[in-house]
Amino acid sequence: MAVVDSYLRRNICREEGMEPLFQVPDLHERTQLWESISGYPIPVFIGDLVQWDFVSEVFRKFTPDTIIHYAEQPAAPYSMLNRRAATLTLHNNLMVTANVIFAVQEFCPDAHIVKIGTMGEYGTPNIDIEEGWIEIDHKGRKDKFIFPRQAGSLYHTTKIMDTDLLWFYVRVWGIRVTDLMQGPVYGLITDENEKNDQLFPFFNYDELFGTVINRFIVQAIAGYPLTVYGKGGQTRGYLDIRDTLQCVRLSVENPAEPGELRIFNQFVETFSVNDLAERVRKVADRLGLKVTIQSVENPRKEAEDHYYNPVHTGLLDLGLQPHYLTDDVLAQMIETVLLHKDKINKDIIFKGVKWK
Amino acid sequence: MAVVDSYLRRNICREEGMEPLFQVPDLHERTQLWESISGYPIPVFIGDLVQWDFVSEVFRKFTPDTIIHYAEQPAAPYSMLNRRAATLTLHNNLMVTANVIFAVQEFCPDAHIVKIGTMGEYGTPNIDIEEGWIEIDHKGRKDKFIFPRQAGSLYHTTKIMDTDLLWFYVRVWGIRVTDLMQGPVYGLITDENEKNDQLFPFFNYDELFGTVINRFIVQAIAGYPLTVYGKGGQTRGYLDIRDTLQCVRLSVENPAEPGELRIFNQFVETFSVNDLAERVRKVADRLGLKVTIQSVENPRKEAEDHYYNPVHTGLLDLGLQPHYLTDDVLAQMIETVLLHKDKINKDIIFKGVKWK
Repeated sequence: MAVVDSYLRRNICREEGMEPLFQVPDLHERTQLWESISGYPIPVFIGDLVQWDFVSEVFRKFTPDTIIHYAEQPAAPYSMLNRRAATLTLHNNLMVTANVIFAVQEFCPDAHIVKIGTMGEYGTPNIDIEEGWIEIDHKGRKDKFIFPRQAGSLYHTTKIMDTDLLWFYVRVWGIRVTDLMQGPVYGLITDENEKNDQLFPFFNYDELFGTVINRFIVQAIAGYPLTVYGKGGQTRGYLDIRDTLQCVRLSVENPAEPGELRIFNQFVETFSVNDLAERVRKVADRLGLKVTIQSVENPRKEAEDHYYNPVHTGLLDLGLQPHYLTDDVLAQMIETVLLHKDKINKDIIFKGVKWK
Repeated sequence: MAVVDSYLRRNICREEGMEPLFQVPDLHERTQLWESISGYPIPVFIGDLVQWDFVSEVFRKFTPDTIIHYAEQPAAPYSMLNRRAATLTLHNNLMVTANVIFAVQEFCPDAHIVKIGTMGEYGTPNIDIEEGWIEIDHKGRKDKFIFPRQAGSLYHTTKIMDTDLLWFYVRVWGIRVTDLMQGPVYGLITDENEKNDQLFPFFNYDELFGTVINRFIVQAIAGYPLTVYGKGGQTRGYLDIRDTLQCVRLSVENPAEPGELRIFNQFVETFSVNDLAERVRKVADRLGLKVTIQSVENPRKEAEDHYYNPVHTGLLDLGLQPHYLTDDVLAQMIETVLLHKDKINKDIIFKGVKWK
């Protein structure tokens, strides 16, 4: 196993003044720590996968059987911040995906690409969201297509484009791809890091890089009202960080076939924003925090009240043992974040980045 | 009116040694010639629309009501040539489209973008191809989506991505877009250039940049067998260059509404490759040329025998007066190319660029 990073996410968080709640050691430090705990060394390559000379150097030194491709600018609000951020997102995400495909074809054509996509590719259609594919019966004839996609941010749109690109090269070159349509992930603690907070993931709670559960927890602790955008009926599929790891592991252990684009809808439960605000309030109250909920004008352009019924059986069939967002899980997250209460910067909680 | 070009197509043709049949004057020369004929001056901006500093300079100096966006690497086989050509195609096409959208938003948010897409975005599905949109009835619920797309080359895939990007910003920013799903264009002569061959378009007949009708005509004249790929049942929608101009003019004169992505299927007639080979042979025979047809192993990955029934009523409803590919039209093309017979380079007719 090896790891490749350009520190893009760290750099853009710093540029925007939106640092995560606690500092995360760099990859050299984290892999050394991991080796001291587990005995497994992980070579680290630091560089930009947009640059082919770096990509080819990495693939020559470490030719993989599987590529787990997370190398993207992952924040929807950042992608809507301004022209420079939009261009960076589009350029980085597309060119890295292309380079990964070209590297597989050149250096390891049988390797399996496991790509992190997003449930956001589908948007919020008025029909059930199938698992990647749909058979369409039209004027008496039938064909099977990638499920129609219509995303809510530029970031999510780049993920649609990634899928388009992967699907094209799956068909012409016969590469193997699993595209994981992942929902928002919550949680900090896994079996591997529970004894060592130096191995915790980034915990962003700002408007650009923080996801809704993280943000509500920090708001609850900081005495800031939980900011529900608009009506709060926005419903998405969520999963625990431990389930993310399971899903990726299951995908790697059960690879797609050559010439197959396998799509899984990677989430465990759906919640509306109002559901989440209520749950955080309830559990925070139990822990003695005073929490209010406040609807704010929605800075995004999105349906605030919509049908949402996505299928998600593929990963369960592979053996996923789901964790659920129980009150205890929320309480553990709140207690973990409480340890860092003094580091919360209230100025970055809400910035009002508008979609338009 | 103003024109912007980076000479990308000229440069890559030269780099690959695939020059068009006759040289085309540069844009300064062509616009001067046009002014001397028509009295209309057309300012020329030469530069790369991938670069924002150039884009913003152009939009500051000339703020348009309408942008006709053709600024893409347009050749499917070139996009499949090698990694460098693929990267250039992906990078150029996506970043230019993004910059055009960002420039409209910044400098002229009410301007109408008329974008050249391609019928190739749809691929060859087993159901009727609707005009951009399809209503899907699924498990008792309904929604309307962009018609599913599945292209046959990287170039065509970048056009799918363009549509994804335009559709996203149409929804969030309310820009106006017409996306023209164009089929292969044939012909050289229009009302505007018929008296002056210095105003003819590029005529490529090589495997990378030439389209099938051009290629068959040159092959017929050069005494080269008409190269049908595989079974020759590949069917596409074609149109005369005069109809291309009509379609663009009609789209400009009848703009899309703010917040509308209007899609037209821009072609007049469908033909299979076998149909076209037979027609060129028949007309060339009449002109005294000896023509043979030869099936060659298909270098592409594509269906050679498939259902194909695309709707194309939108532009007819706007007033398109179609020209058809009659024997006389083919004869005129052959006679025009015969004037340049001595310039045909037989070495570039067939190169065997493989999709895999």
